[in-house]
Amino acid sequence: MIIVLRKDVKQDQFQEIVDMIQELGYHAHVIQGTERTVIGAVGSGRGKDKLQAMENLPGVENVVPILQPYKLASLEVKPEKTVVPIRDGITVGGDEVVVMAGPCSVESEEQIIETAKAVKAAGATMLRGGAFKPRTSPYSFQGMEEEGLILLRNARDATGLPIVTEILKPSDIELICKYADILQIGARNVQNFPLLKEVGKVDKPVLLKRGMMTTIEEFLMSAEYILSEGNKKVILCERGIRTFETATRNTLDLSSVPLLRQRTHLPVIVDPSHGTGHWRLVAPMANAAIAAGADGLLIEVHPHPDHAVSDGIQSLKPEKFDKMMKTLSRFIDAADRKLAAPPQQ
Amino acid sequence: MIIVLRKDVKQDQFQEIVDMIQELGYHAHVIQGTERTVIGAVGSGRGKDKLQAMENLPGVENVVPILQPYKLASLEVKPEKTVVPIRDGITVGGDEVVVMAGPCSVESEEQIIETAKAVKAAGATMLRGGAFKPRTSPYSFQGMEEEGLILLRNARDATGLPIVTEILKPSDIELICKYADILQIGARNVQNFPLLKEVGKVDKPVLLKRGMMTTIEEFLMSAEYILSEGNKKVILCERGIRTFETATRNTLDLSSVPLLRQRTHLPVIVDPSHGTGHWRLVAPMANAAIAAGADGLLIEVHPHPDHAVSDGIQSLKPEKFDKMMKTLSRFIDAADRKLAAPPQQ
Amino acid sequence: MIIVLRKDVKQDQFQEIVDMIQELGYHAHVIQGTERTVIGAVGSGRGKDKLQAMENLPGVENVVPILQPYKLASLEVKPEKTVVPIRDGITVGGDEVVVMAGPCSVESEEQIIETAKAVKAAGATMLRGGAFKPRTSPYSFQGMEEEGLILLRNARDATGLPIVTEILKPSDIELICKYADILQIGARNVQNFPLLKEVGKVDKPVLLKRGMMTTIEEFLMSAEYILSEGNKKVILCERGIRTFETATRNTLDLSSVPLLRQRTHLPVIVDPSHGTGHWRLVAPMANAAIAAGADGLLIEVHPHPDHAVSDGIQSLKPEKFDKMMKTLSRFIDAADRKLAAPPQQ
Amino acid sequence: MIIVLRKDVKQDQFQEIVDMIQELGYHAHVIQGTERTVIGAVGSGRGKDKLQAMENLPGVENVVPILQPYKLASLEVKPEKTVVPIRDGITVGGDEVVVMAGPCSVESEEQIIETAKAVKAAGATMLRGGAFKPRTSPYSFQGMEEEGLILLRNARDATGLPIVTEILKPSDIELICKYADILQIGARNVQNFPLLKEVGKVDKPVLLKRGMMTTIEEFLMSAEYILSEGNKKVILCERGIRTFETATRNTLDLSSVPLLRQRTHLPVIVDPSHGTGHWRLVAPMANAAIAAGADGLLIEVHPHPDHAVSDGIQSLKPEKFDKMMKTLSRFIDAADRKLAAPPQQ
Repeated sequence: MIIVLRKDVKQDQFQEIVDMIQELGYHAHVIQGTERTVIGAVGSGRGKDKLQAMENLPGVENVVPILQPYKLASLEVKPEKTVVPIRDGITVGGDEVVVMAGPCSVESEEQIIETAKAVKAAGATMLRGGAFKPRTSPYSFQGMEEEGLILLRNARDATGLPIVTEILKPSDIELICKYADILQIGARNVQNFPLLKEVGKVDKPVLLKRGMMTTIEEFLMSAEYILSEGNKKVILCERGIRTFETATRNTLDLSSVPLLRQRTHLPVIVDPSHGTGHWRLVAPMANAAIAAGADGLLIEVHPHPDHAVSDGIQSLKPEKFDKMMKTLSRFIDAADRKLAAPPQQ
Repeated sequence: MIIVLRKDVKQDQFQEIVDMIQELGYHAHVIQGTERTVIGAVGSGRGKDKLQAMENLPGVENVVPILQPYKLASLEVKPEKTVVPIRDGITVGGDEVVVMAGPCSVESEEQIIETAKAVKAAGATMLRGGAFKPRTSPYSFQGMEEEGLILLRNARDATGLPIVTEILKPSDIELICKYADILQIGARNVQNFPLLKEVGKVDKPVLLKRGMMTTIEEFLMSAEYILSEGNKKVILCERGIRTFETATRNTLDLSSVPLLRQRTHLPVIVDPSHGTGHWRLVAPMANAAIAAGADGLLIEVHPHPDHAVSDGIQSLKPEKFDKMMKTLSRFIDAADRKLAAPPQQ
Repeated sequence: MIIVLRKDVKQDQFQEIVDMIQELGYHAHVIQGTERTVIGAVGSGRGKDKLQAMENLPGVENVVPILQPYKLASLEVKPEKTVVPIRDGITVGGDEVVVMAGPCSVESEEQIIETAKAVKAAGATMLRGGAFKPRTSPYSFQGMEEEGLILLRNARDATGLPIVTEILKPSDIELICKYADILQIGARNVQNFPLLKEVGKVDKPVLLKRGMMTTIEEFLMSAEYILSEGNKKVILCERGIRTFETATRNTLDLSSVPLLRQRTHLPVIVDPSHGTGHWRLVAPMANAAIAAGADGLLIEVHPHPDHAVSDGIQSLKPEKFDKMMKTLSRFIDAADRKLAAPPQQ
Repeated sequence: MIIVLRKDVKQDQFQEIVDMIQELGYHAHVIQGTERTVIGAVGSGRGKDKLQAMENLPGVENVVPILQPYKLASLEVKPEKTVVPIRDGITVGGDEVVVMAGPCSVESEEQIIETAKAVKAAGATMLRGGAFKPRTSPYSFQGMEEEGLILLRNARDATGLPIVTEILKPSDIELICKYADILQIGARNVQNFPLLKEVGKVDKPVLLKRGMMTTIEEFLMSAEYILSEGNKKVILCERGIRTFETATRNTLDLSSVPLLRQRTHLPVIVDPSHGTGHWRLVAPMANAAIAAGADGLLIEVHPHPDHAVSDGIQSLKPEKFDKMMKTLSRFIDAADRKLAAPPQQ
């Protein structure tokens, strides 16, 4: 921490500040500048929150943190990239790019099986689908719950595709772990800390979506919650942030992909469906995500988007998804990577 | 809903759109404009999500919702203001302004009792304090949990002040209801829908904080989750939104106070401590909140802010809080309201 | 400046960094931390931009500025508040609160004279009105130009109210100075540096509006452009920033009022009309602005808002403005200030 | 326009609203819904601003515009893509991708000639460099002005590369047109309407950068200002918007590339240097921009970024730019496009 003093700091205030730094277990290293005095608090004490609170002391202008607050998620602690194993030899974070595709919500056996087969035929590696849905309105469809999980399992049985599905509350964990191959934490739950701790305790890959107002640093701190409970299988997912622009549902922050690569060993995938909110923008942004260095994609596909119970506007029809995959393959080549093949049955 | 058609819509596309509107149970009212055709979908069907998804259909430019999606929270359903009873005759939302004050976290018996007595002496109506803390970092202090709740109860016993404390997960509800007079849902949980449903099932006032990324409409939809489960005792709390400005911790959106008044019957209070993040800004923004029409305030007070385990920067010392209350009373008068007296013992 | 080094910095990189700091005229003060080495660059050299660019050097993690970049606008250079004289004894920034009111655009002699008389009768101190209008669309009304300025002068002749009007380009300065008492720089021009330099060269008060994406620091730097050209008569105006919230036209950032008071000696007024974009929100936010410590208000008033050529939605009718002023006076009293009387004729 | 009425609208209010719509030259088409009445105002009158102002009328809930306000920039008026000719057969917006590269500021003859030769050797199509610089601080380097323009011309003479340079104020137009091949309007001037009108009157290509707070619609309206004055040679440039995220200087909104393609015929290029603010992020985001469908790139290159007078942090060294161009060529291939060759001499 760097403690910047006010220009008009008095001698006794200065002494109080230095004393408090030392009392918190740090060494106070004073730099006398021409316009300001700053103090470096050197040490590895546990009193960072309290150092920060020194902004309250008379004579202190502000307190500037120097170190990034995440540890286990950082490249400094683990320089080599994490490769998360899913099942049947499929991994996320290695040389291969993965594509997770499927509907926003599981709606019926026919819908999910038809979608699973179609996305597999087009080259998708995994199946996504929601059984528990976080909806802005209490009057909107809230998901098929366990029945939906069973349908997802049936779809996996039918195609071999691993299943990604969302968890909303800690008490559902046992149930969802019975069916899912990857637990998804949605954008609204990125700082639902009890939920993060819970998924940190199980041996299942977690797909953690960035919140719509989450900074990169906060995003990594949320990953740190999972990692620090013991679960190292964390996949990050950029899905757009909320900005003043309303022409898109969110603003897909693709810069986060190379930026996260510079800060963490965890794999990063991109969701251009939520990231843009319009199916016409999904294919170009999928290409862009791969070009930016993403390890995979999360794409909404629905056999009849104009009849979908949720997120129809941003869902691709299977034939459009198939076309997208063909163009995407050119960009995967350009990025010197390969598309992960779906499991053979 | 208004469905706006593309300029180049074809006759068969047009027919498909009209058919689908009718199939969803609405009447299609066509307006032929000079540059565009728009269709009003008239009716009270349950297919709003599906109408919205029609943006996917060929020939559709976009779909514009006309009605606000909240019902129970709206002034149309309940024109008279809601007055939430707390305990011992104290209410929120009536003529009297309430001030809830106390530390961010409960840290010790001495700290919380000392604070409770000090804020009561200065005129506060209730005591706030966190026993379960949502912290960005897993390495930060996470709260004293049940021990903290017991200390809060002791503070209430000592002063008579009702207790406001935060709930983080559905499974804590029984425990916290034993001690708290108001359940606080924090900004990060404003769209934690399982938690909203849970607090909607109990007979306890709920203080719902606006999220840092929550629109007014979404905020009211979150209130609607609680109301639609049966709990009508909801108090809204503006606590600042996240913007590009970093000079303050959040941007306190005081316009939301009169705006919410135009849309909902629920009481609205303001938290200038989180809303600004700097204790020097708390008093002027507390005055401004009352002038804007707020029904109350939530203020962080700590006997030793420079030693607080959390949020020290934005906490007032008791003597500053006392000074703030004296000035505030002038603005409460100007607003033609009264300060709710703390309970007599 | 504090230069934070990477954990893996090498000895020769370290030496290069230290050499460069010294070459730029600063002393390199090294702090060896437990996890990081940081270097304080001490001195008053002119090479700040170049110090910042050292983030590019291998071995450097980032560069953290310590000092605020504005000088003339700061309280450190001038601790006493600036009081800007307008005309006929009216000032901005003293004990008295000023209210500038009038239409967005000057539309006709009848409109502006009628408005001027009405706002004066209600207690306004000055008349606002635009003759040159910055409009998002080239097809919208662009203002009456010089004809509008003449009408404003006529309104001043009729009422004695000083005139505030906007300037859009450097070449208009001579013309506008002939008529205006205060030159307004609009939000879109807050970083139009050639225009700022131009108004910095004349002896006329300048009303500088914060841009919709301008940080407090950038805002003060724009004021610094005017001050550094010699014109010390700068009045700052908070008018809302752009955020994700669309229920209001902008988000009125009232915290900026006490924050600016802590950083600058310049007077600060508030524009709740643009700040909210809805006339129903103007009166409560005007009250709140005064409670937050503003030195004045800028209010849109139009005799027939539903026929206004611009900004009708946010304009008050004269009778509503009159009512607003009556309530406002209570809050001016509570703030221990007085309303500046309009000039006597 | 759609006028949505309040639930409690009265008969005489309703009549007044209908009368006013007709008085403004529109036909009032009434839709009686189950919960609300809405009125479609049909016609091609000039009174759109006034229709919008009807939100002020008693009985009106809100007014929803249906048509996009830009005309000349829209695909409806001109469905085929615009190809802007620059000089010597180079164009922007055709099949070929252009790369404009060079320093933020022209600093010396040696610097600009060295950079021009280096970027040409690496494959750049044009040279960028600022002679008039909009700087946040009045104390920062403001550009070499005409001397800088002369140096840019010398660099063009030496390499054949066309010149892109920024214009800050209307009165500089004649001077800059003597030297520049493309006039750049910077982000801060995107709504400097007098400047837009001025560059709309000359026969020179204009590179219009999106502002950090500009919506897509406003961006196209600013292009409309130029087009409506007669200059059809407009190139749009996405350069990042301002959001809450501070880890990057701006948030590069790449979704704007395919979105603009759906709305306008004008070419769109991307500036990943300003868009990210960190040279390490430039190459991946350049790849992503091409994958998203951009017609070109604007890249900051400086021979000695750690000594640059401005924007050093985001500038690439020539050797890094060369490496970037090699990888970029793979993505240009994948996008089925070609890199525009620099002019032969």
